[in-house]
Amino acid sequence: MSPHFHPVDLKKAYRLLNHGPTVLVSASHAGVDNVMAAAWACALDFDPPKVTVVIDKITRTRALVENSGWMVLQVPNAGQLQLTHQVGSHSLAEQPDKLDQAGVELFRVDGYPAPLVAGCSAWLMCRVIDEPHNQTTYDLFIAEVVGAWADERVFVEGHWVFEKADPALRSLHYVAGGHFYAIGEALDVEQS
Amino acid sequence: MSPHFHPVDLKKAYRLLNHGPTVLVSASHAGVDNVMAAAWACALDFDPPKVTVVIDKITRTRALVENSGWMVLQVPNAGQLQLTHQVGSHSLAEQPDKLDQAGVELFRVDGYPAPLVAGCSAWLMCRVIDEPHNQTTYDLFIAEVVGAWADERVFVEGHWVFEKADPALRSLHYVAGGHFYAIGEALDVEQS
Repeated sequence: MSPHFHPVDLKKAYRLLNHGPTVLVSASHAGVDNVMAAAWACALDFDPPKVTVVIDKITRTRALVENSGWMVLQVPNAGQLQLTHQVGSHSLAEQPDKLDQAGVELFRVDGYPAPLVAGCSAWLMCRVIDEPHNQTTYDLFIAEVVGAWADERVFVEGHWVFEKADPALRSLHYVAGGHFYAIGEALDVEQS
Repeated sequence: MSPHFHPVDLKKAYRLLNHGPTVLVSASHAGVDNVMAAAWACALDFDPPKVTVVIDKITRTRALVENSGWMVLQVPNAGQLQLTHQVGSHSLAEQPDKLDQAGVELFRVDGYPAPLVAGCSAWLMCRVIDEPHNQTTYDLFIAEVVGAWADERVFVEGHWVFEKADPALRSLHYVAGGHFYAIGEALDVEQS
């Protein structure tokens, strides 16, 4: 585990997703670990923090999430561009060594069942809230965030500091066809 | 209506939200128009395109969305930073001239009931799919996108071109406390 891996107050966990980054979804069940990329993840509530994420039925990760009831949503960064795209474009079903090929290193936090991806900028440990209609009809999963961490070099005392941190730690924002944007310039409102 | 307001193929409409921008939600019912900001909006499906958005019960906009069954999700830009924050921090209930105060100019597109906010970078006309459990329990709305448009200076033939366009047209990504980021540098994966 990186020395920069620091806990985030659950009341501020929504801020890790608020700016709309693409995430990696990791899960584990019956000895199988997997990781996929998901652009369609979103905060849903502040306290307790909740999230939504869309996970297609064709993904191998979905079965792991459904069977274990747990997943991690983590915020990959510019330094993980290739990794993010690789886990988003290959399935464990056709590439059994997918995680090795993509250079994914997993780690665990005591007390939580789902694996985390090393090198990300933030992590949300999520317990799935069973919503069969949403899952079946829309591939939409709702989960409660029960643990949150961030790389303290880019998320400091409840605030992203992309403008001051190593550019490799900027979040990724996927569009399509291998085309991403990194998060950019800080813009602060004039408070009246 | 701006000469740069151009239709977007519905099959590519998901790209307007894929990178996670903060949106403005506009709606109208019984002669009342309103606009609010929402950071928790997300694509949900490709074809037909669907979206999710979280709209708190305390907002005036929510009643307009529920009563009319229509809303527009639009992507405001760096040139609308103050406007976006103002419509996100004031309610029509306490400030009846909220839209004027924030400098919001609305326009309509023939055949669609919900009003659009001028000056944004993209617009998604959405028909609400009635999901009472999600709306009541999570403040979560699901809608189908039935019309999409973008400013052709920043979304060209199905692709965002933030890196080439006027920086004032960059999307906004809200964190908290009046602190936003603009979308940043384009990062393209090396295709193997």
